[in-house]
Amino acid sequence: MRTADIFELLRDGRPWTRAELASETGLARSTVAARIDVLMRLGLVAPFGGAPSTGGRPPSLFALNPAARVVVGVDIGATHARAVLSDLSGELLDEVAAQLDIADGPDVVLGWVTSSVRLLLRRNRRRPGELAAIGIGLPGPVEHSTGRPINPPIMPGWDRFDVPGHLQRRYDVPVLVDNDVNIMALGERQTHYAEVDDLVLVKVATGIGSGIVSGGVLQRGARGTAGDLGHVRVAGAEGVRCRCGNTGCLEAVAAGPAVAAALRATGLDARHGQDVVDLVRSGDLAAIAAVRQAGRDIGEVVAMMVNLINPSVVVIGGQLSAAGEHLLAGLRETVYQRSLPLATEKLRIVPTRAGAEAGVLGAAAMAIEHVLSPEAVEAATLAVNGT
Amino acid sequence: MRTADIFELLRDGRPWTRAELASETGLARSTVAARIDVLMRLGLVAPFGGAPSTGGRPPSLFALNPAARVVVGVDIGATHARAVLSDLSGELLDEVAAQLDIADGPDVVLGWVTSSVRLLLRRNRRRPGELAAIGIGLPGPVEHSTGRPINPPIMPGWDRFDVPGHLQRRYDVPVLVDNDVNIMALGERQTHYAEVDDLVLVKVATGIGSGIVSGGVLQRGARGTAGDLGHVRVAGAEGVRCRCGNTGCLEAVAAGPAVAAALRATGLDARHGQDVVDLVRSGDLAAIAAVRQAGRDIGEVVAMMVNLINPSVVVIGGQLSAAGEHLLAGLRETVYQRSLPLATEKLRIVPTRAGAEAGVLGAAAMAIEHVLSPEAVEAATLAVNGT
Repeated sequence: MRTADIFELLRDGRPWTRAELASETGLARSTVAARIDVLMRLGLVAPFGGAPSTGGRPPSLFALNPAARVVVGVDIGATHARAVLSDLSGELLDEVAAQLDIADGPDVVLGWVTSSVRLLLRRNRRRPGELAAIGIGLPGPVEHSTGRPINPPIMPGWDRFDVPGHLQRRYDVPVLVDNDVNIMALGERQTHYAEVDDLVLVKVATGIGSGIVSGGVLQRGARGTAGDLGHVRVAGAEGVRCRCGNTGCLEAVAAGPAVAAALRATGLDARHGQDVVDLVRSGDLAAIAAVRQAGRDIGEVVAMMVNLINPSVVVIGGQLSAAGEHLLAGLRETVYQRSLPLATEKLRIVPTRAGAEAGVLGAAAMAIEHVLSPEAVEAATLAVNGT
Repeated sequence: MRTADIFELLRDGRPWTRAELASETGLARSTVAARIDVLMRLGLVAPFGGAPSTGGRPPSLFALNPAARVVVGVDIGATHARAVLSDLSGELLDEVAAQLDIADGPDVVLGWVTSSVRLLLRRNRRRPGELAAIGIGLPGPVEHSTGRPINPPIMPGWDRFDVPGHLQRRYDVPVLVDNDVNIMALGERQTHYAEVDDLVLVKVATGIGSGIVSGGVLQRGARGTAGDLGHVRVAGAEGVRCRCGNTGCLEAVAAGPAVAAALRATGLDARHGQDVVDLVRSGDLAAIAAVRQAGRDIGEVVAMMVNLINPSVVVIGGQLSAAGEHLLAGLRETVYQRSLPLATEKLRIVPTRAGAEAGVLGAAAMAIEHVLSPEAVEAATLAVNGT
């Protein structure tokens, strides 16, 4: 029986005695004591209660020790970046942000990440040895198993770049990398839908993408491209050229730039998605109608997702979701018209609650999930025992 | 540590000594012996080698004993039914089939299931106590957690019928129920793609549906409706009325009855999908063109699935897949045109290999997976210890 199995029991958060752990596992008390010792050296478990027991006897209660180790979660967008420091319970300890162009390439951007990790640790009086993992979201396709971006369209210089290897030159901890929409889905679920096993997060911004949690697990697909709905063909977009080279893609009619272009064609001053949001907030009727139509177009594809994947919650996030109920109204209109009654019986279509924090919280959650996984605990145990 | 954990080790199929099990788990030899005893009483584990050891000493090697217990897998279609007897390794022992109308209702159809179970056990000299579970596929939506059909369109009298409860009056074993396409996906994967974690099976017959395996797990969705692609709207089907009440659904233009109707309109004698298959096999050019177009229409939706779910294998099954390469050619044409390059980089689109057996093999696999699951082993252990 592995140390990780004892850790799994302790993950319930309540304090355990050695005798309880021995009884639950069938292990000898001496074996339990040795494995508790390893988990304490890893900082994952601590004596419970804090008060040293009398007479020099070893402490008798142990519990998960989420505050002893920390992770850094990083969310890198096209032109901005955020990083948070969190303990293993997911409690946020600190945050930094910067304007940063992803097109500056991996050396510049990952240099910012490294110095942000250093800053977050120092500012919070954490030693580098207390850092357990780093989670990162990038604005493009990522091969999660290796942490390398694959043909990312807006990330020149990043193709197949070894992101974990670069960061590990400075911090020798596990580095988990995924695309920005997947970590948004993780962050939204972690903070607001912990009890929901089937959740889709749709991001509507410069592009349109989604992160899919099915059966409680983030689904990345065979090549890590699961959730790509921006290039699904929709009715009404025939002949419209998309930046991917195809025609008729959802993104070409319903993403921020497309809606802005449609409004420009009517004489309005709308250069990008934020202008659209501002126009909607100012009550411009043409902008409201355009956003509602974008919602209907996105709804076409979300209706397919509802039929194919059958989530119980669809969360709408990204810049254009700030246009409020108008986007959701168009979206709901199409989804309830086009999806099967059983699939929508208990479906909720809701705006993001984690908002701009979803990504960075999800990146931290991805790192924590890895640190607490049986595989990682077992690997760390072997490393401790080998020294 | 649970009995199920010892069983997990033995599931590797090779023989283990008590000492090895004790060493691997950290349990006392006496504890290992007691748990092996329970697993032998459950019939899941047996002494290895068969020859009784000398001098009355207890046997020293133990291994998984897949032949000791059996499951029955049942595949019920609209007008036919099959049932197989299988051992826990998935080896088929016997099979029965019948013409049976699902519309005759649950008493008649499940009566056939009960008598088939009895027949399969008797004919193979198996005692009812050796039956470990029953797996059933039904041609409509099923709430897997309760085993009840939910608003099944072609199954009058079945809505919310307690299928497990009915069968358990005669055989008190776990009864797992799912829709026919999900068990086809399980059967195809089990028999031909055991190493593939992301597989979609598309069934093209009277209706069109799919079963989705993502990350190695069959995905049922929040309400069990995942994989429903028959009622996704496709270009070119605008205005065509579907039996679901909506217009523009894939099924309304590309399922067997729709293709047959299109051929009838040209003067051909095609009443249903099988006539279409026969015409294609006889070399009729209009039928070949119609099947190829159906492939393109289905490809529109499969392209979306490839973008959204990113499988590495798409298997095409169901009656119309018997029309051979023509359906696949149309399908591949659209998928490779419409899907993202990264998503199709290693994608295979292939005809079913398990064929008409896929469903019944998947039903047996679903039952076996349940019997060998840690939860089921632990529940059985408690039942044995309680007697």
